[in-house]
Amino acid sequence: MGKLTVVGIGPGDYENMTVRADRALQECQVVVGYHVYVDLVRARYPDKEFLTTPMTREADRCRMALDAARSGKDVAMVCSGDSGVYGMAGLVYQLRGEAVDPEVSVVPGLTAACSGAAVLGAPLTHDFAVISLSDRLTPWEKIEGRLSAAAEADLSIVLYNPASKGRPGHLRRACEILLETLPENRLCGVVRNIGRPGEEGRLLSLGELRGFEADMFCTVFIGNSQTVPIAGKMITPRGYRNV
Amino acid sequence: MGKLTVVGIGPGDYENMTVRADRALQECQVVVGYHVYVDLVRARYPDKEFLTTPMTREADRCRMALDAARSGKDVAMVCSGDSGVYGMAGLVYQLRGEAVDPEVSVVPGLTAACSGAAVLGAPLTHDFAVISLSDRLTPWEKIEGRLSAAAEADLSIVLYNPASKGRPGHLRRACEILLETLPENRLCGVVRNIGRPGEEGRLLSLGELRGFEADMFCTVFIGNSQTVPIAGKMITPRGYRNV
Repeated sequence: MGKLTVVGIGPGDYENMTVRADRALQECQVVVGYHVYVDLVRARYPDKEFLTTPMTREADRCRMALDAARSGKDVAMVCSGDSGVYGMAGLVYQLRGEAVDPEVSVVPGLTAACSGAAVLGAPLTHDFAVISLSDRLTPWEKIEGRLSAAAEADLSIVLYNPASKGRPGHLRRACEILLETLPENRLCGVVRNIGRPGEEGRLLSLGELRGFEADMFCTVFIGNSQTVPIAGKMITPRGYRNV
Repeated sequence: MGKLTVVGIGPGDYENMTVRADRALQECQVVVGYHVYVDLVRARYPDKEFLTTPMTREADRCRMALDAARSGKDVAMVCSGDSGVYGMAGLVYQLRGEAVDPEVSVVPGLTAACSGAAVLGAPLTHDFAVISLSDRLTPWEKIEGRLSAAAEADLSIVLYNPASKGRPGHLRRACEILLETLPENRLCGVVRNIGRPGEEGRLLSLGELRGFEADMFCTVFIGNSQTVPIAGKMITPRGYRNV
């Protein structure tokens, strides 16, 4: 029986991987993942067996990884960002159930909230909420409720999956909900291609964000009531009695 | 003029540092930080100049780092966890103001939400809020409002700074607020000494958490309505239409 390590590889470049994630990939025999993420690591770990599945086949991917470990191989399942946050670690545990084999361990990685924030400056110094705009597995009403609650509680907000081919209007709808509570000039930021070629960050107001054409490579940040632009960066102070 | 890099070193061990954080520490001449965090990296980068300040002297620490960079040295300012989330990156930008020198860059690191979640299993697969129970810089009423909002929106919640010498009853008070909305049996987890000797995680109910004696080395996780224990791990499914 091999072991299965669920590895968060961070935004995609080697520099933003942890030493532990690198070691897990070096030591495994089989790398399993969504083909885009597997391609991010393939060149650095060439002498591995690679197993990939298309997008949305997450359960198949986890079963493939568990089966490879059961067949006696040490398996690394790669997730972009963190292995937990919208990642596969939970599904692996669910599909393994109450069995103790194969041994599963979780290697955390930089999630886009942290890696994207560093590009913009420091938008998440204080309390924040992470909310995905994907309604593939979650009712949209639930997402709306979370957006409203976070805005009313003056949390900074990070939006994952702000857009995809099947959800072109989600960011606009999210902004309209936020604008019921927050002002048009609330400072926001968008980061695109974090840790990859073409990485870019920009600041804009919540009113401007409403009309922004996000794609699936974007992560969106909405500041709290104290967030300010400083020297082109998006900065949230540490607290309400600052410095 | 040197440059200043604000480095998130993750939970504290080398394994959980990113390649980029390691490189920033290798390449700098001066390491600045709270003495406990500096001690975590001192042995691995011995030929550096080390500048430390005690706890709560964050502004002094940032000024010290900026001054060292202005004097011509390349400086790494170390933060535990991420450099942004409750870290020093924002304060560095605030204190530098609209000046363009010294050059500041932010290297993200694993925050306790991600590194602690990996110890417990996968409690943060879905939307979540990160809330600090420290009221040193934030009014307690604001913290209470955020706890209530997160609970009502069915977000998983990560509590940072659940206790300290000056705040012995904060976790109990936070649980009492959460229990106005959430059931006694809501699955929770506590991780202690993430990435350090004595690392341990345990699952407990929200009712049990109310009486738990947390210390400053603990990070606390409160599940959402779907979170379940599986084979001793704390697992939040990916969505409400799971697998």
